[in-house]
Amino acid sequence: MIKIVISGISGKMGVRIGVLASQDKNFEIAGALEICSSPEIGKDIGELFAIGKINKKIETDFNKIAPFCDALIEFTACSATLEHLEIAVKNKKAMVIGTTGFSKDEVEKIKNASKKIPMIFSPNMSIGANLMFRITEEIAEALGKDYEAEIVEIHHNQKKDAPSGTAKRLGEAVSKVKGKIPQIHSVRLGDIVGDHTVIFAGIGERIEITHRAHSRDAFAKGALDAVKFLIGKQPGLYTMADVIGR
Amino acid sequence: MIKIVISGISGKMGVRIGVLASQDKNFEIAGALEICSSPEIGKDIGELFAIGKINKKIETDFNKIAPFCDALIEFTACSATLEHLEIAVKNKKAMVIGTTGFSKDEVEKIKNASKKIPMIFSPNMSIGANLMFRITEEIAEALGKDYEAEIVEIHHNQKKDAPSGTAKRLGEAVSKVKGKIPQIHSVRLGDIVGDHTVIFAGIGERIEITHRAHSRDAFAKGALDAVKFLIGKQPGLYTMADVIGR
Amino acid sequence: MIKIVISGISGKMGVRIGVLASQDKNFEIAGALEICSSPEIGKDIGELFAIGKINKKIETDFNKIAPFCDALIEFTACSATLEHLEIAVKNKKAMVIGTTGFSKDEVEKIKNASKKIPMIFSPNMSIGANLMFRITEEIAEALGKDYEAEIVEIHHNQKKDAPSGTAKRLGEAVSKVKGKIPQIHSVRLGDIVGDHTVIFAGIGERIEITHRAHSRDAFAKGALDAVKFLIGKQPGLYTMADVIGR
Amino acid sequence: MIKIVISGISGKMGVRIGVLASQDKNFEIAGALEICSSPEIGKDIGELFAIGKINKKIETDFNKIAPFCDALIEFTACSATLEHLEIAVKNKKAMVIGTTGFSKDEVEKIKNASKKIPMIFSPNMSIGANLMFRITEEIAEALGKDYEAEIVEIHHNQKKDAPSGTAKRLGEAVSKVKGKIPQIHSVRLGDIVGDHTVIFAGIGERIEITHRAHSRDAFAKGALDAVKFLIGKQPGLYTMADVIGR
Repeated sequence: MIKIVISGISGKMGVRIGVLASQDKNFEIAGALEICSSPEIGKDIGELFAIGKINKKIETDFNKIAPFCDALIEFTACSATLEHLEIAVKNKKAMVIGTTGFSKDEVEKIKNASKKIPMIFSPNMSIGANLMFRITEEIAEALGKDYEAEIVEIHHNQKKDAPSGTAKRLGEAVSKVKGKIPQIHSVRLGDIVGDHTVIFAGIGERIEITHRAHSRDAFAKGALDAVKFLIGKQPGLYTMADVIGR
Repeated sequence: MIKIVISGISGKMGVRIGVLASQDKNFEIAGALEICSSPEIGKDIGELFAIGKINKKIETDFNKIAPFCDALIEFTACSATLEHLEIAVKNKKAMVIGTTGFSKDEVEKIKNASKKIPMIFSPNMSIGANLMFRITEEIAEALGKDYEAEIVEIHHNQKKDAPSGTAKRLGEAVSKVKGKIPQIHSVRLGDIVGDHTVIFAGIGERIEITHRAHSRDAFAKGALDAVKFLIGKQPGLYTMADVIGR
Repeated sequence: MIKIVISGISGKMGVRIGVLASQDKNFEIAGALEICSSPEIGKDIGELFAIGKINKKIETDFNKIAPFCDALIEFTACSATLEHLEIAVKNKKAMVIGTTGFSKDEVEKIKNASKKIPMIFSPNMSIGANLMFRITEEIAEALGKDYEAEIVEIHHNQKKDAPSGTAKRLGEAVSKVKGKIPQIHSVRLGDIVGDHTVIFAGIGERIEITHRAHSRDAFAKGALDAVKFLIGKQPGLYTMADVIGR
Repeated sequence: MIKIVISGISGKMGVRIGVLASQDKNFEIAGALEICSSPEIGKDIGELFAIGKINKKIETDFNKIAPFCDALIEFTACSATLEHLEIAVKNKKAMVIGTTGFSKDEVEKIKNASKKIPMIFSPNMSIGANLMFRITEEIAEALGKDYEAEIVEIHHNQKKDAPSGTAKRLGEAVSKVKGKIPQIHSVRLGDIVGDHTVIFAGIGERIEITHRAHSRDAFAKGALDAVKFLIGKQPGLYTMADVIGR
């Protein structure tokens, strides 16, 4: 049993990580964190996932529970993440960070911390999306110069960036082989979580590879897979590519 | 049996129209035309389709055979098309024109001719693509303002225009309802004949409608369906929308 | 403002209907119902949707609030639905029923009630899926006998029936035109909410039409659209086809 | 310049191999073969591809031209293939065999011959389809036990076998990892050359990988890539997996 603490437990990602962890026999939810202003502080964690009371309350101070866990999963704000990072290092606990928006200096601080604890720090923890990067590069390599590629990505109409970060990384995977970034088409519609397709076509045929994220569960599951991977590892900054085992 | 003359019989479209017509019991190939410089002139038409000799030679003068046919199918150059048009009018024969690239004056001339003979004059005779226009408008209408649309089209890398004419017409079908042209994404890869997808998405769902042209046969079949439609009709300029029966 | 009561407010559908209604200026949540054993009884409705208190408590007796609403939305158990149906009839309120699993007699009772109040009673209220039925029939009709169709549907691996009810209705839409039910392929994988594709193919081309339900919101939105449609209508049993306006 | 002889030059595959080879600067068409009853015997090869005369006639006896080529490409009947195989061995020429339908004994004979000349003997030479086998196995391996797979394949309605040989091999690629063959859905429609999709789905996401063969050119190009690969190789039976470079 891996004992995890989930930070940001009442956030959209926190809830889903909690639900999936409580359904997976490999995990025990050792604790959960929220900001001190949260109305959830002091409630039993189990109530959040409709699994009944588990006699562990939602806390706001990670110091209190860090000694009793194996790993911390963090999808919160930058300031909270950095504060918890320090405590994780002090307690030598593994850490999975999905928080985004750090400054360069803060990223440096996170990377330094990874010299002391095993860590994964990734903006997209979906296993499938991360596998796409590797597979796309391989297809580009195997098909060779007679085949060209373009990328189509579809996201909800509230998404601020275009192309998506994932589409850019897919573009880089192609360009590593082809020497130039393929064209990326960004469709923005409805409430689509995120589809990415790379189309390779040559003489008389094509290969299309598509990743569809249906819900936040894809990212929550990836975060839990990341924790499983980190347990027993030496300190270091690992990637989702390591998790999917290249 | 509908007696057709196929003009441009050794061109890429002419050959396929000939093959499909020779497999369809509704048609008799009454004649075939080529430019006078063609090495095929004088050969038996049947040899072109590996159906054995049919005792009809490839001709260059439509006047000679016009009286013995019901309709002319024309996928050639503008000058040849206009010359044959005059002969079709003189002989009161139906005409299906797939030739493109006419000047405004020439288009006017064609439209005038349609007052005297039943005619279809369309740059894309694929039944499926023409159906897409109608269905796209209907979906846009039924889904209403809570759903947005974008279009993705994929064609071979030799295609000169982007977006494709078909994509533009799909865009117009959406804009008739929504009041604005949706974004169109043009992918150019390999030797893909032509795919068009309209994606509609709203809250929690989407509808995607895709037309894929696999080969010229889609257009050849549409041209033959157009001929079937014209037989027995009054003079006039009909459209593929009429053929698919709205 | 349409005043709705949502029955089964803490169920998976109830929550999403509440969230979408609270974001739509056309609706006022006039009340919410739960079974008497629910721990939510007496809580403020607004707390469920993180919209803050709205000074309306979750009730268990529809009689108490029925006079103050325009319509009742019901996604619950059969017994609760039938009980509320009686109260809706007594108060002359419109009713949208998404509950499933009724016996023949119960269905008869519901249909009888629709003589006295405007009602929609449908197992799948997704606007897109209901539109698919109509569009599929139209495409089958327009393409005619030279085109064949097959259906591919994809659902999560917990789904008990195969093919899905929606796939069967799509099959019927095709068979109305073609005279025989097309082959239906049922893929069962992961936690996919529900994709349905009808593929039509003929000479040199194909049309594929796909509906993807991403989340329960597709059904919640359809239920709210159904309410909007019913307001001001004469008593009767209306269908989602009426809602999408054919 | 690789000097090739194309056997079965007026067959559907032979023509396309000839067209693609005549457009590729790496190849010189050193000769072409047809059965002795063919009306094409004695014609100039160039006339078949509309590239003008090249002063090489279509022959029926491979002995005559074998010494002047580097490799033979064979998409013909079993008896012709075996006859030409013997001559290729005698002349130490590479051979690419796409002919199908051999008996077990004949297959043995072919394998024996490969001890003396470099050879590729494959029923499907599409680069993309062969890459699919490898990629499918890799995805199955990387995604692990939390993801399931099913296969959907679409072919024209004249195809006699279901599932297709390619779909079966994709199934084996999955089963190598998962220990059981995934379900395969065979759609038979229109004149579709061949689409194969493997869908992997897990919690909150899926990966779909699709290969679409648009035309025989996919197979013709693969045969030419196979020839390029064989030139300079030691005798042996190589596979398309070797050609795409694993």
